[in-house]
Amino acid sequence: MSFNARLMAASAIALGLIATPVMAQDARTIRAAEQVRDQALQANIALDYVTQVTTRFGARPAGSRSEQAAADWAADYMRAHGFQNVRIEQFPLVGWERGEESAELLGARPQRLVAAALGHSIATPANGIEADVVFFDGLDALLAAPVGSLTGKIAVVDGGQMVRMQDGSGYGSLSRIRSVGPTEAAKRGAVAFVMRSAGSDEHRMPHTGTTRYVEGKVPLPAFALSAPDADQVARLVQMGEPVRLRLKSTAHTYQTHSQNVIGDIVGATRPDEIIVLGSHMDSWDLGTGAIDDAAGGAITLAAAKLVAEQGRPARTVRVVLYGSEEVAQPTDTGNGGGAYVRNIGVAGVEKHVIAGESDFGADRIYALGLPPGAQGSDFAKIAERVLRPLAVLSGEAELFGGVDIGPLARAGVPVFGLRQDGTRYFDLHHTADDTLDKIDPAQMTQNVAAWAALVRLIADSDVDFRALRSAATEAKP
Amino acid sequence: MSFNARLMAASAIALGLIATPVMAQDARTIRAAEQVRDQALQANIALDYVTQVTTRFGARPAGSRSEQAAADWAADYMRAHGFQNVRIEQFPLVGWERGEESAELLGARPQRLVAAALGHSIATPANGIEADVVFFDGLDALLAAPVGSLTGKIAVVDGGQMVRMQDGSGYGSLSRIRSVGPTEAAKRGAVAFVMRSAGSDEHRMPHTGTTRYVEGKVPLPAFALSAPDADQVARLVQMGEPVRLRLKSTAHTYQTHSQNVIGDIVGATRPDEIIVLGSHMDSWDLGTGAIDDAAGGAITLAAAKLVAEQGRPARTVRVVLYGSEEVAQPTDTGNGGGAYVRNIGVAGVEKHVIAGESDFGADRIYALGLPPGAQGSDFAKIAERVLRPLAVLSGEAELFGGVDIGPLARAGVPVFGLRQDGTRYFDLHHTADDTLDKIDPAQMTQNVAAWAALVRLIADSDVDFRALRSAATEAKP
Repeated sequence: MSFNARLMAASAIALGLIATPVMAQDARTIRAAEQVRDQALQANIALDYVTQVTTRFGARPAGSRSEQAAADWAADYMRAHGFQNVRIEQFPLVGWERGEESAELLGARPQRLVAAALGHSIATPANGIEADVVFFDGLDALLAAPVGSLTGKIAVVDGGQMVRMQDGSGYGSLSRIRSVGPTEAAKRGAVAFVMRSAGSDEHRMPHTGTTRYVEGKVPLPAFALSAPDADQVARLVQMGEPVRLRLKSTAHTYQTHSQNVIGDIVGATRPDEIIVLGSHMDSWDLGTGAIDDAAGGAITLAAAKLVAEQGRPARTVRVVLYGSEEVAQPTDTGNGGGAYVRNIGVAGVEKHVIAGESDFGADRIYALGLPPGAQGSDFAKIAERVLRPLAVLSGEAELFGGVDIGPLARAGVPVFGLRQDGTRYFDLHHTADDTLDKIDPAQMTQNVAAWAALVRLIADSDVDFRALRSAATEAKP
Repeated sequence: MSFNARLMAASAIALGLIATPVMAQDARTIRAAEQVRDQALQANIALDYVTQVTTRFGARPAGSRSEQAAADWAADYMRAHGFQNVRIEQFPLVGWERGEESAELLGARPQRLVAAALGHSIATPANGIEADVVFFDGLDALLAAPVGSLTGKIAVVDGGQMVRMQDGSGYGSLSRIRSVGPTEAAKRGAVAFVMRSAGSDEHRMPHTGTTRYVEGKVPLPAFALSAPDADQVARLVQMGEPVRLRLKSTAHTYQTHSQNVIGDIVGATRPDEIIVLGSHMDSWDLGTGAIDDAAGGAITLAAAKLVAEQGRPARTVRVVLYGSEEVAQPTDTGNGGGAYVRNIGVAGVEKHVIAGESDFGADRIYALGLPPGAQGSDFAKIAERVLRPLAVLSGEAELFGGVDIGPLARAGVPVFGLRQDGTRYFDLHHTADDTLDKIDPAQMTQNVAAWAALVRLIADSDVDFRALRSAATEAKP
């Protein structure tokens, strides 16, 4: 009995339609997955890859020469490690380059603050913007300010310190300040926007990140302060000290291109059924993009290579190193995930049986999220058994996948999530501190082992995750 | 029997000269010290002081307007909190101001590095210094290089990562690289000097600090790289990549003044016997000098105020907030400790019965070091008893005291050390990360309690630490 048939049966059982005992497991497939898992724990190329990318190329902003050079190098790296059909697919985008920037408290007691312009933020005039601060204790307070009430002022929004959580929850509401804050401040007349970084650390490390564009650009100069600097401004306001800032930035945009680097382990028996593993090559400019996201490339490349070395799988395993994940300018087209789907077209999308993305650091995997309908299936039980020695649990269904595979998901491709521990991810995310030393090789190795084992299982099976999803959806009242 | 007489007796016992039972303790004095200790645990002004200094004034480089303004404010703060004879004593020094600075890896794959000029480092030419790197794995390797061997090169010295230790040991050998490295590199023909920061953290936070002057200035532009940046350069060298740097700095020196802020709790019965408590007001320019060393002022001011509120002690308790501890330019005169001793003169030095300094952060006190000869004395036993509930042990004799009270110690004043936990001190020391949030209020409170209790004991006693030291020294074979 094929995996697929068994899964359909199991799914039917789960739905209470029929009462059949679960069939015997496919012992050979399980053993292969266990072997590749254990092989990963012995040796894998993840640390080599992440070391080389971050050391040789440093920061890799979307569309930069550094990202382009890293892509060329990564294509060679893929070929050297046995990937087939290795190719680079370019797409145009608007790049953004940080220039010189500074933030100072003015007055009798000037102080330098540590701040970073938000991605795609426009430059200030050459001698900066100097204005009094209006302080908002969160986004709602800014939204409550009347139009025109910030004329000539600098809006400072402090949404509070992010709490460390395993799954990173809490980031959404804080990153919303970054997303909509500049536009909302501009609507109210502000001349600049400053936010407390969306991060969980207490270092002088501003967290950059991109924001929402209005007519193709960020409407005003926008900055993130490090947490201690945001605390300092908040205390000065509380003490009744006058708070006036001078902000400078020479950031600029330019026309450029980015690219996706694609390599395959071509399937032995069903090469047109593709499992696509994703991560992104670009990074923010402040750090060297070790956890965000050279680690994702390292993990997925290492896993796919281990699978290939063990013996070609039935299905094709594809690894994509997407360009320009961090920004999408023009919105929805200037990113690698969108470019990939445009290039493969509808027929290509249909060949993709499932997609997974690694873009949350390099710490250990703690849960597997399968596509809706696959929970409780035979496939899920086998995966659980193979991943259990790695202390990976079965989690809720995966719906999102990630930014890079979002366009695939929206085009109908089922997605899985190997969920990794993000407790310290937002200490480092989008800061200068995202560097190689933050990678914990032992945790990354566990991560590679989980990916290798799961990819082996999926690639040797004939599970149709679309069909499982449809069955589950149709079964709902 | 006075403390002093008892101590002499105990000391004689310790030296094996006579065999007399230890006398009954001075119950009233012990109770007073226990009370002030417990009062400190209830409430003290340390957090208020450190919050105000770091927030209102930010960084306070020696000789800067910020340090001067903070000194004026601190004098008012002392007066408001009941200190007497509050005065500011100015002295001249050569100030140093960091300008714009940058460090970049050049070549096909340029990368920005995070570096900071060392204190008193000279500027580069306006368009920077661009040269190939010669990498040294420690100071000995640099010292082994022949004169002339670095002509036109940039010397990079990586002495390795500092290991976290409770007592901060390990800093000495690494800070020696900062001290002598630039001069030794210059002797060998180097055009600039770069070192791995003397620090124990793994953040993109360079640790600045001053270096040795040759004919009144640092001989060449000198920088510290953050630990991850030093790792990056070391890896590139190891990978065989060409490593060429461009360094820029517009740092400059200027004539200015600094000042000591002095306030007394005048002794009730023996006002001419002075216990002097020290810390420094200046900070490095990158952070806001919370742990180095607004905390020291906070702790000593809070302790002295608690003692005064409880009732005037027999001896005078003096608190000095020294200016310009971090640099001494001109060497040996441009610092607050030296200026203090010059101002009081020989007669003034003789009035000082003991000196203590708080300049190692704000974490908990774990040991007391008394002057030589006082170990095992009745005074030591009483101090041990009063400090035991705070988990403070009796440690080795204190010989050094600290940089600020070094000139007093060298002039013959006994010194004590309330040794504090420095495990995380060199994560933060001389970096942008030395900010208020790094203060742990609970640990600082224990610290204040230890200071208050010990100061109470000393100030109500007539122990002659000079005499104890002499007796111990003379008794040695």
